[in-house]
Amino acid sequence: MATDRIRIGITGVSGYGGRELLRLCAAHPGFDVVYAGGESSAGRRLCELEPALIGQNLGNLTVAAFDPDHLDGVELLFASLPTGASREPLARVPGNVRVIDVGGDHRFVDGWAYGLTELPGVRPMICGASRVANPGCYPAATLLALAPIIAAGIGDPEGIVVDAKSGVSGAGRGGRSEFGFAETNEDVMPYGLERHSHVPEITEALTRLQHGTVAETVPPGTSRATVAFTPHLIPMTRGIIATCYVRPLRQSSVDELHDVAGRMYANEPFVRVVPPINGRGPRSTWATGSNLCFVGYARNHSTGHIICIGAIDNLGKGAAGQAVQNANLMVGLPEVAGLQALPLAP
Amino acid sequence: MATDRIRIGITGVSGYGGRELLRLCAAHPGFDVVYAGGESSAGRRLCELEPALIGQNLGNLTVAAFDPDHLDGVELLFASLPTGASREPLARVPGNVRVIDVGGDHRFVDGWAYGLTELPGVRPMICGASRVANPGCYPAATLLALAPIIAAGIGDPEGIVVDAKSGVSGAGRGGRSEFGFAETNEDVMPYGLERHSHVPEITEALTRLQHGTVAETVPPGTSRATVAFTPHLIPMTRGIIATCYVRPLRQSSVDELHDVAGRMYANEPFVRVVPPINGRGPRSTWATGSNLCFVGYARNHSTGHIICIGAIDNLGKGAAGQAVQNANLMVGLPEVAGLQALPLAP
Amino acid sequence: MATDRIRIGITGVSGYGGRELLRLCAAHPGFDVVYAGGESSAGRRLCELEPALIGQNLGNLTVAAFDPDHLDGVELLFASLPTGASREPLARVPGNVRVIDVGGDHRFVDGWAYGLTELPGVRPMICGASRVANPGCYPAATLLALAPIIAAGIGDPEGIVVDAKSGVSGAGRGGRSEFGFAETNEDVMPYGLERHSHVPEITEALTRLQHGTVAETVPPGTSRATVAFTPHLIPMTRGIIATCYVRPLRQSSVDELHDVAGRMYANEPFVRVVPPINGRGPRSTWATGSNLCFVGYARNHSTGHIICIGAIDNLGKGAAGQAVQNANLMVGLPEVAGLQALPLAP
Amino acid sequence: MATDRIRIGITGVSGYGGRELLRLCAAHPGFDVVYAGGESSAGRRLCELEPALIGQNLGNLTVAAFDPDHLDGVELLFASLPTGASREPLARVPGNVRVIDVGGDHRFVDGWAYGLTELPGVRPMICGASRVANPGCYPAATLLALAPIIAAGIGDPEGIVVDAKSGVSGAGRGGRSEFGFAETNEDVMPYGLERHSHVPEITEALTRLQHGTVAETVPPGTSRATVAFTPHLIPMTRGIIATCYVRPLRQSSVDELHDVAGRMYANEPFVRVVPPINGRGPRSTWATGSNLCFVGYARNHSTGHIICIGAIDNLGKGAAGQAVQNANLMVGLPEVAGLQALPLAP
Repeated sequence: MATDRIRIGITGVSGYGGRELLRLCAAHPGFDVVYAGGESSAGRRLCELEPALIGQNLGNLTVAAFDPDHLDGVELLFASLPTGASREPLARVPGNVRVIDVGGDHRFVDGWAYGLTELPGVRPMICGASRVANPGCYPAATLLALAPIIAAGIGDPEGIVVDAKSGVSGAGRGGRSEFGFAETNEDVMPYGLERHSHVPEITEALTRLQHGTVAETVPPGTSRATVAFTPHLIPMTRGIIATCYVRPLRQSSVDELHDVAGRMYANEPFVRVVPPINGRGPRSTWATGSNLCFVGYARNHSTGHIICIGAIDNLGKGAAGQAVQNANLMVGLPEVAGLQALPLAP
Repeated sequence: MATDRIRIGITGVSGYGGRELLRLCAAHPGFDVVYAGGESSAGRRLCELEPALIGQNLGNLTVAAFDPDHLDGVELLFASLPTGASREPLARVPGNVRVIDVGGDHRFVDGWAYGLTELPGVRPMICGASRVANPGCYPAATLLALAPIIAAGIGDPEGIVVDAKSGVSGAGRGGRSEFGFAETNEDVMPYGLERHSHVPEITEALTRLQHGTVAETVPPGTSRATVAFTPHLIPMTRGIIATCYVRPLRQSSVDELHDVAGRMYANEPFVRVVPPINGRGPRSTWATGSNLCFVGYARNHSTGHIICIGAIDNLGKGAAGQAVQNANLMVGLPEVAGLQALPLAP
Repeated sequence: MATDRIRIGITGVSGYGGRELLRLCAAHPGFDVVYAGGESSAGRRLCELEPALIGQNLGNLTVAAFDPDHLDGVELLFASLPTGASREPLARVPGNVRVIDVGGDHRFVDGWAYGLTELPGVRPMICGASRVANPGCYPAATLLALAPIIAAGIGDPEGIVVDAKSGVSGAGRGGRSEFGFAETNEDVMPYGLERHSHVPEITEALTRLQHGTVAETVPPGTSRATVAFTPHLIPMTRGIIATCYVRPLRQSSVDELHDVAGRMYANEPFVRVVPPINGRGPRSTWATGSNLCFVGYARNHSTGHIICIGAIDNLGKGAAGQAVQNANLMVGLPEVAGLQALPLAP
Repeated sequence: MATDRIRIGITGVSGYGGRELLRLCAAHPGFDVVYAGGESSAGRRLCELEPALIGQNLGNLTVAAFDPDHLDGVELLFASLPTGASREPLARVPGNVRVIDVGGDHRFVDGWAYGLTELPGVRPMICGASRVANPGCYPAATLLALAPIIAAGIGDPEGIVVDAKSGVSGAGRGGRSEFGFAETNEDVMPYGLERHSHVPEITEALTRLQHGTVAETVPPGTSRATVAFTPHLIPMTRGIIATCYVRPLRQSSVDELHDVAGRMYANEPFVRVVPPINGRGPRSTWATGSNLCFVGYARNHSTGHIICIGAIDNLGKGAAGQAVQNANLMVGLPEVAGLQALPLAP
């Protein structure tokens, strides 16, 4: 019955993450989108932002200038705001409105559950939670690939190299000409060489994983994970590949690596553990448009590094898909509701 | 005078490397292309392969089925054959014909000079040489980035991670549907996870560089470099970025890293040492269509790794451009002849 | 109840059209995929073709070598076979199995309803039909754009220019190296200059539309539509834009063109009539991953041509989406079942 | 001798056209770039805009805020300014400085020669000229394809359809987010539906061509050409295909069309007349990085239209290449100087 459906708000709806939330929520069997917030798009109807909504009821919804005091009837709010811009307004959202911050301001912040669902210790915190911080796109791919190896004590959490490749949608919809087509096409650009905002999230989670859960802080004296994280911008729209290089703490075959991951993710609906086929790892297109994460493992014969590869859609498991998964858990719906479509291929 | 010009042959002319050799040689002030060899394209005229040559003299040259016994008058032969296919035929090329093997069969093979010109010890071997093995595309980007750090004893040659990204032209022109547009577009594919044919070339050069030259084999007891080399196929046509992660043997600032490289490459016409600007490394488009290699250096704050980035055009410094540079040295022309055009941008 | 669900077969499942059918049928509320047929992929399980299906029930389905005599229990078969290859085998499919030929062998062929649903006269023929010929991808975009203008007698069905642009997935998954990434990227290729297999379908439909329905052949003496149809291959994976230039039979404003189309498609769930905004027509990305068709109209000030633009996803409204829409009508399900997801953007 | 070299200025050097001029002039055997003008880039050195120039003499040239009164010693100025911004400043350039306006403000304007060199009547006007207006990118491809057919009286200059496809670099380097990678990738966008600034240039030239020369205005009573010109933005960086549909004034075979064009362009170094091979027209990549224009002709069997296809690099023959060709003629150098490199392929 309609009365059972959750009344959903999305703020930051004209950004790429917000647009993907709209796509997923509009098709979700248990959600009704009743509110859209924005800044530059305030005052426009959704059908002006999204031509597919021309002539549709949802298309007539007018984007409101986001005001946490006027969320008329929203039961769950997805906030897809620029990192740095959400702390103050989200603090003002009434307590009876559940909030998922898709941005970067509340990860590992008190009062907010960290929402990378498949990490040990996370899911129980999300079920029924009121405030959830969605993981970053790079951390989602990186941590899902690394978690089994670190939690099992096979890989060294210190000195990890994470070389990540992302499609350009990860840079957001802002008008920066530096991400113009002619600048970005046919190019690979390494960036964040000095520091990247996602590193503390990755190292905190890896440090906690040594004790088997990310739900708790580590006891004093625990050694901290260190990660050389280097992202690269790649000429594609969607997709992330995180290629992680870990030094082994003990010997293990590729089969064992695969089995360890297979056990951790045995009942996970959104993680696929794949063997290297013809020496190839998971590909980013495998996840396009879905909430899936593909992970694969290999051993390097020259250095002995364990290679852990994670592949996601940065707007799926890296943002909107993960957020809907969290929302399902928060309100008690089946975890996979609205997220079961196969990826788009080709 | 025309009599001073070198008579050039190119075999494998219909492949991507061969086509780029044709482009460079046709515009070269000291070369005349007098011979084109091929297999699938034998019997066709060059203007059928390259529409720009319609109505041009060079366009009337007919591609010959490659036969090393019939190279009528060729003085210098570029061989761009599939790796594995050149040993036997190139052994039959008459001694008075200089040969540059752009393929992979003669790197670090006796009787062949290894032709990554800018590495310590290489240039003197190339000048006047009769047989030169061109470096691989991945090794060219990797070694030019790593050489200053390894040769200076700043970085550990063991346990290096090289995460490389290449455009699809690196896979050659073969008809494999797995590299069809719809398969490759919007995708990143890690491959070579188990082993890659370029690794021995990289580790041999790095091992030798510890002693300051790649011209000589190392004395017994020298520790060997080890490299976790992982290539990724990226949805672009040309370009390679090799991102290399090296553990430091001693402390050094980014400025020192930059200076060490700057000194090694101070007089090199084709290497540009660039500082990280806004935390960004060199971009692959910076080299498109040229023989340039850009190298940049950073330090990772979390793990302490030295990050060395090399950017080239895989068909330029990674193949045809490097080959023409070697040819210039072999025959005594200015090293930069025919290679001075700026990269294509955008 | 499960017993109410339709048992679906898909043959040609490893091609791009077949893969998209799999995606749509797997998420369809009224379909169960029970059969997958193929040729090159026969004997493999679906999870080997589609990594997202690893560990899923559907992933365990083994692809059968297509044999119309052994379709165990299939109630509706989608046939996505190469044009020219389906006449004989589809003739052998038992009469109690409904068939939709997504390929090109049965369009305007006796015994098969022509399945471009929104054209006048089509829908009643599809409801309950046993054999339906899906339209071609180019004709779908072209005819939906042109139909209102031709049916209303505003545009001349003779001398129409249709300049079409298609993504590379339209060329199919075959292993032709001519559609390799490095050949196709950064390129526009006009083709079919002499003739194209889709022309008879377009002219037949337009000729019939003069009489207001495509369900019936035209009376003797009716003038036949003529179309200069020129397709272009564009460096993208999915999408078609058909830009059609029609000479007016009578004066009409852009508003009138828009209204005529708006009335024809007023109740159509999958067609959106959009005005030219800032002089721009509908864009191919607006439809990506969906069964939508966007149409827009303009008048050229210099020549007076009416410009009709159709935008679709060639694998959506141009193939699999249209096929599922037809299937819904054939079996009495809501026409939009399984087709309501918003397009993927960006 | 250096004293014979022409002292070149480029203003608008940070735009795409300006950057391509820099590339061509830097490699030109008779040019010395002594001046670079700009607006946003004023005060920066060229090596900051173009990393390949790091450490090169030319890289030390500082971009000046463009001031036509201070062009110290420039003998020939390429002005690549936004259309609408060049009339006033270029009027102030001293008379002894030759000027080529690559922008759109002086085409068919008194006092300026129209510089599409290969059109009948143009070349003599350019030789020795002081002020030349470079053609637009779309007109260059369109007019070179159409000129032989119109000048020979075979095609009707009224009612021509020109459907053009351009890479995104044609939109310039401006910071508009609408041309961001994620917006533009995987998309075709028709635009200019109501009007496009290039139409008057096309119709004026075609109208004049009826009398066999574009050097003179037409006598009163001459019928004017009309063109339905519709450009499309395509997800590639460089390249234009103009597909032109002309109604025949008299019967002619494809061979005749080809011969007529072949005769007009028999001695042209930059135009290649190609037959349709397997029904395909010239491809945009054939011209990438060069000053070439490929033209091809076909007849449509359904409508009888003559199809004329022009393929260029929008930054080559469509801008910088054409400008250098004009510059060569203006100063008496060989027309092909600095323009003979083969296109980049792949």
